[in-house]
Amino acid sequence: MQIETEDPHETINNYKLRIDERISRFFDRKEAETKDDLSRRVIRMIREYTEGGGKRLRPIFLVLGYRLFADENNAIFDASISIELAQSYLLIHDDVIDDSDLRRGKPSMHIRLWRSFFPESEKGKKMGEGLAIVAGDLAETYAHESLINSDFDPSLLLLADMELTKTIEMTGYGQFLDVVSGTLNDFRENDLIRLHLWKTARYTLEGPLAMGALLSGRHDQIMDLRLFGRTLGIAFQLKDDILGLFGDEATTGKSIYSDVNEGKRTLLMIKAMEFSDRQDAEFIDRILRRGNVTQEEFERIRNIVMKSGSYDYSVKLMDSLVAKSKEYLNRIRGNSCAKTYLSWLSDYLVARDH
Amino acid sequence: MQIETEDPHETINNYKLRIDERISRFFDRKEAETKDDLSRRVIRMIREYTEGGGKRLRPIFLVLGYRLFADENNAIFDASISIELAQSYLLIHDDVIDDSDLRRGKPSMHIRLWRSFFPESEKGKKMGEGLAIVAGDLAETYAHESLINSDFDPSLLLLADMELTKTIEMTGYGQFLDVVSGTLNDFRENDLIRLHLWKTARYTLEGPLAMGALLSGRHDQIMDLRLFGRTLGIAFQLKDDILGLFGDEATTGKSIYSDVNEGKRTLLMIKAMEFSDRQDAEFIDRILRRGNVTQEEFERIRNIVMKSGSYDYSVKLMDSLVAKSKEYLNRIRGNSCAKTYLSWLSDYLVARDH
Repeated sequence: MQIETEDPHETINNYKLRIDERISRFFDRKEAETKDDLSRRVIRMIREYTEGGGKRLRPIFLVLGYRLFADENNAIFDASISIELAQSYLLIHDDVIDDSDLRRGKPSMHIRLWRSFFPESEKGKKMGEGLAIVAGDLAETYAHESLINSDFDPSLLLLADMELTKTIEMTGYGQFLDVVSGTLNDFRENDLIRLHLWKTARYTLEGPLAMGALLSGRHDQIMDLRLFGRTLGIAFQLKDDILGLFGDEATTGKSIYSDVNEGKRTLLMIKAMEFSDRQDAEFIDRILRRGNVTQEEFERIRNIVMKSGSYDYSVKLMDSLVAKSKEYLNRIRGNSCAKTYLSWLSDYLVARDH
Repeated sequence: MQIETEDPHETINNYKLRIDERISRFFDRKEAETKDDLSRRVIRMIREYTEGGGKRLRPIFLVLGYRLFADENNAIFDASISIELAQSYLLIHDDVIDDSDLRRGKPSMHIRLWRSFFPESEKGKKMGEGLAIVAGDLAETYAHESLINSDFDPSLLLLADMELTKTIEMTGYGQFLDVVSGTLNDFRENDLIRLHLWKTARYTLEGPLAMGALLSGRHDQIMDLRLFGRTLGIAFQLKDDILGLFGDEATTGKSIYSDVNEGKRTLLMIKAMEFSDRQDAEFIDRILRRGNVTQEEFERIRNIVMKSGSYDYSVKLMDSLVAKSKEYLNRIRGNSCAKTYLSWLSDYLVARDH
């Protein structure tokens, strides 16, 4: 089967199918590796969690970071799943930290573990959270394992493994900032952009793209590639926040109220408070602190976001970031097909409905 | 300064000083790497946690695994701290999972984070736990980073990094078994030995020794070295459990009641129940399920453990495991000084009072 065609959409889809297949193969091997029933049960739960989720954006970016400078091959698809496994790890821990019961419209990992292992126990939820910490830690080892086992030169694998490690590290500082920022009184646009850079852009775009480029053995243009990833990564998060407030629950897979109830100070909220009169600003601040938003309150928040100009501000910033990211992309001397696919993906990221 | 002398005790101590120095150097560099105050605050807390703890047994074993087959050098000390950083990571998560407030006689990481960041908040404890999950994840990235940055051939580093990864993975299955086993009615000696192999022996002995040997480039005798580590690792855990019930709080740094209150089904408990009459066995089982042991109840448990022969059983098994481990050690054709140090350490591990 020809994987890469003239149609970016079709190509990306072919990538995705191949990545899905490698994920299944990885977990087939993991399950076969152990004879212990309990370990196998854990492996299966991490498998279901990983297989059940997502658009495989991160491994696709990893493949494209490689593809810019090298011919497509089997090994890069094996390596690409490492970042998807790292994603499972980050999401599993994130949901424990945020006490979120749902992920992608399904129970989050600690809820699954609670139901599976301690359905009757009083302390079942707490124990499910404990097991989810471990399940996340296991998924993290799978990320390293799948990368190290892929068929590349050891010195390139080591560079890519360091990039994976630094990506996870940076995401950790982002997580820290995210949890602590909820208690800060003065959290502004600049802080938020930093948070998006650390918590989202690095592991969604910059890290995967850099890992792919490093595996190709070409490091000379990695800075432009990183800048492309960072810029587009912030735009990606701004889109996520827009979908969080205005998206369709059926396609996003999460409650439309959840961002507000979690008190997320998205750019939409920050700018709505900044651009509004004191009464509206205090209303938003109060609801974000309190959570448990009613439908009426939620509609009022959406109205304030629209009429204050905050929505337009976010969309405009997002569009300018995508334009900027394309400038960085154009500077890279690499395979033109790969550049076309990346450009198409940039547009997709801000046009998507989930 | 000559590091290795004829006196194993002195040599091990010199190793420890050098390892401590590398840990400090690593964290100096981490702190200098970032200009962000919050990130630096987290790094410092992980630093204090790591510097404050322990006998550096794991890095010492890593150095000795290397030393069996290669001359001592600077790079192996740089690489050795990776397993100490992995230890910080495992302990930080372990204390969140077990809801333990103390570690090494000091507040555990989630308690420190709670006090440092959210002293006034109602949800402070929960948020401290969330931050501790992230702090542990960060320490794990430091483990990989310190290893990958050490001055060895990339192909050797990759082997050692895979061993580190598989070590953390195995410890994860052990953690899982540990949490779930608390709810199993039928948990026997065999299950317990498996738990000790997975949760303790791998990351305390087998993993570090194997990492050192892999970095030396000599893989031909790694199986005997692994068997040495596994056997001695179980003995190490049996000693830990004995100290947990009969040790001196002032030297062990943890409450003498904590193992019982956590409901730990140590070999001492399992065999005490097996060797006793129904009344005594049910008494122990009840207290382990209930926790909150009184001093009187605690003394009765210790009495049952002694008079039933369970204490002797554990000591005898421990001694025979140490003897067995020395047989494996003797089979290894490696540097005789390193073998002497390892043999001395084996005796130390079962004679120690903390």
